[in-house]
Amino acid sequence: MRIPFLVHAHEFPIPGSHPQPPLDIHCSWLLLSCSTVVSIRKHPDFATTGQWNAVTEAGGKQTSHVFDAVMVCSGNFSEPSLPLQCFPGIERFRGQYFHSRQYKHPDVFQGKRVLVVGMGNSGVDIAVEASRVAAKVMISTTRGAWLLSRVFEHGYPWDMILNTRLMSLIKTNLPGPLSWWLLNYKVNRWFNHANYGLQPENSWLVREPVLNDDLPSYILTGRITIKPGVKEFKDNSVVFHNCPEEEPIDIVVFCTGYTVSFPFLEESVVRVENKHASLYKYVFPPQLQKPTLAVLGLIKPLGAIMPVAEMQARWVSRVFKGLCQLPPQAVMEKEVNEKKKNQIQWFGLTFDEVLKTEWLVYLDTLASFIGAKPSVLGLLCTDPRLALTIFFGPCSPYQYRLEGPGRWQGARQAILTQWDRVLKPTRTRVPAGSSSSFLSLLTVVGLLLLLAAVIFGFL
Amino acid sequence: MRIPFLVHAHEFPIPGSHPQPPLDIHCSWLLLSCSTVVSIRKHPDFATTGQWNAVTEAGGKQTSHVFDAVMVCSGNFSEPSLPLQCFPGIERFRGQYFHSRQYKHPDVFQGKRVLVVGMGNSGVDIAVEASRVAAKVMISTTRGAWLLSRVFEHGYPWDMILNTRLMSLIKTNLPGPLSWWLLNYKVNRWFNHANYGLQPENSWLVREPVLNDDLPSYILTGRITIKPGVKEFKDNSVVFHNCPEEEPIDIVVFCTGYTVSFPFLEESVVRVENKHASLYKYVFPPQLQKPTLAVLGLIKPLGAIMPVAEMQARWVSRVFKGLCQLPPQAVMEKEVNEKKKNQIQWFGLTFDEVLKTEWLVYLDTLASFIGAKPSVLGLLCTDPRLALTIFFGPCSPYQYRLEGPGRWQGARQAILTQWDRVLKPTRTRVPAGSSSSFLSLLTVVGLLLLLAAVIFGFL
Repeated sequence: MRIPFLVHAHEFPIPGSHPQPPLDIHCSWLLLSCSTVVSIRKHPDFATTGQWNAVTEAGGKQTSHVFDAVMVCSGNFSEPSLPLQCFPGIERFRGQYFHSRQYKHPDVFQGKRVLVVGMGNSGVDIAVEASRVAAKVMISTTRGAWLLSRVFEHGYPWDMILNTRLMSLIKTNLPGPLSWWLLNYKVNRWFNHANYGLQPENSWLVREPVLNDDLPSYILTGRITIKPGVKEFKDNSVVFHNCPEEEPIDIVVFCTGYTVSFPFLEESVVRVENKHASLYKYVFPPQLQKPTLAVLGLIKPLGAIMPVAEMQARWVSRVFKGLCQLPPQAVMEKEVNEKKKNQIQWFGLTFDEVLKTEWLVYLDTLASFIGAKPSVLGLLCTDPRLALTIFFGPCSPYQYRLEGPGRWQGARQAILTQWDRVLKPTRTRVPAGSSSSFLSLLTVVGLLLLLAAVIFGFL
Repeated sequence: MRIPFLVHAHEFPIPGSHPQPPLDIHCSWLLLSCSTVVSIRKHPDFATTGQWNAVTEAGGKQTSHVFDAVMVCSGNFSEPSLPLQCFPGIERFRGQYFHSRQYKHPDVFQGKRVLVVGMGNSGVDIAVEASRVAAKVMISTTRGAWLLSRVFEHGYPWDMILNTRLMSLIKTNLPGPLSWWLLNYKVNRWFNHANYGLQPENSWLVREPVLNDDLPSYILTGRITIKPGVKEFKDNSVVFHNCPEEEPIDIVVFCTGYTVSFPFLEESVVRVENKHASLYKYVFPPQLQKPTLAVLGLIKPLGAIMPVAEMQARWVSRVFKGLCQLPPQAVMEKEVNEKKKNQIQWFGLTFDEVLKTEWLVYLDTLASFIGAKPSVLGLLCTDPRLALTIFFGPCSPYQYRLEGPGRWQGARQAILTQWDRVLKPTRTRVPAGSSSSFLSLLTVVGLLLLLAAVIFGFL
């Protein structure tokens, strides 16, 4: 079978980063990795063979190929979205402006007054870097954002705490208001978002959170100022909504995101509406007669993208080989259309379109398609230690290597020792006198004393 | 009255930073601020006049002066301590090394492998700056440290939460083990110090905490590595205790602190032993016949130094003017000697020498000397709102301007509006739809639902 991968640097997993057997498909992606894909069209015999005609260009020379299947891995970050029409006066602005995708090095901000428009991960990262050399840095955001720290509760990486089977069960089963309250409480424990000017405009609408450790202290120490949405640009300054003063600026960085687009595909193959592609499980166009084209990594789950892209690849390769069947077209289209519906509710959790699928639930769903989903209940009888670690611990990708195709002998051991390996690079100094069991004992004693003090305080 | 201040740039409060009347003393500090003080000796008539002979040098020319009193404000950071004899092999080390006091700009670390020795505030600040340009940065620490973030609980500045009268009452009255447990719990909530290699070697000994927002995420992302104490230096590398590998390094920054010294004073005036000066309330040499020499700002309280130095100045000026009396010499010497005793206990809180005095208790003590200590109980009858704000809110210096000498009419209003002013510079964006009372209501509803869920969970 001959399959090209259209790989975007962002999305391609680092070779060897996961101990896994290679996919059992002969790929010609190396051939194409230095070429530009001009077009991919259905082969005239598509209805029977599912084949694709691809035209690539390298060194000014176009070449035609026929492939049995196509994996599109061009990702979320190909085509910058720069909606200048939403910024009145930008045409008269005499300073410099560019999209975040053009940003390469903070030197460009040396001594300048910088405005970052948009508060996604790129916007905050750029503002933080700029603030170390710029004269002044402002972030303009209409919608605000929830900010998470990489140094999460007690210093653990946040996804090792939040992306567990226990937490997933809680998140998907709690009633809306309670779930909202818990989330609100959790994100505001690090710092009160309202006091830092970051409070989302509509806190019911759960958007992709921003991961940044530096921003709060940079706001607190005055290196970065948060501003409302831009009202208009003037020659050398900007006016914000609800702010009377003009702010002089030299450079504007538009961190206004990306548009999903597949210029090499016909629109009938992958339909894109409202920035979202109509794809079954974010992967397969539902209306094709043959499931021989898949889009990988076009998803923004609240968790690491690497295990997700890996799981998609495992599923897709089995569908291509005919070892997995997709549901009938009508079933797929129904699901795609339901996902598209706007689920904004007055009271209750509503996820942004791209986040409608919970990370762990999505992984489990694809894993169940290929028979690689771990059975916690089954393991509880045969290997209770492993079952409990799987249920309470982080959902590391080894969990999907315990059984099914691509099973890996080392998976159990890897799961049981994952905490040690996570702490190894940071625990580089162990004081001579430290005794954790002694400290734990003291913690219990302290807790009892505190309880006693509270009780006596009430009496 | 003629009094020179010997001012260190670190310690001199910014003019106008506090709304306060000027001290009622004619000072000649401006005259001396550009001169070097060569010597200060008792005037021959000291026993009767309390006067001092001072010799200053400016432009190579020495001048003699007679002063009625002297304020020594040279601070903690005058004489670097560089104990090279504690670092075997440093004489053969071919790289560059210097004391943190010589550090001016991170450019010196560009592309270098940097070792920072010592984990005080300077050490961590330098390591963080270095890590943005250096090839590799390590911090070597034998004793470890507790790290606090400026973005403290819920994002408030830590001293606005911890330095309140309520917290001071709890801290000074809780039994030792409980106090220790609470502290341990609080500091490890941000991140587990043991997992980041920072756990203090002897966690019973409470040292000055390090205030840094960046270090944990820099450790987590591998920009800075924490190492144990230095065993020895080699030609181009260093060996740490309990680590077999040599680590190649190019630059060593010794952040090994400072020595207290008064080279312009005779030893009989201020005795310095074990890095600590023998001073009554950290200010007055107890054995002088006349209290006309005071040391200001030679204290490291767990809180802002500015209000402390201000309070010391208010007390000292009244002592100099004869409006406040010091206790008899024997009483002062007894207290100084008791402070010097080593209070290390097996079980219970023990503060480092410099931290033996609680910030708020120290301020209150000096304030009571000059009649400026606020009476919370008294206010409870006459102005309950103010009394409660004083007791539960941060101990801002306005509290010592409510009554007594230097009373300020604006103090009450300043105390009642302090939170608004603290939040003003960071709350630079208020979303249109935000309603804090509605959110509070939802928080209560959420809490009740959570309780219900927990109860049902147990049933």
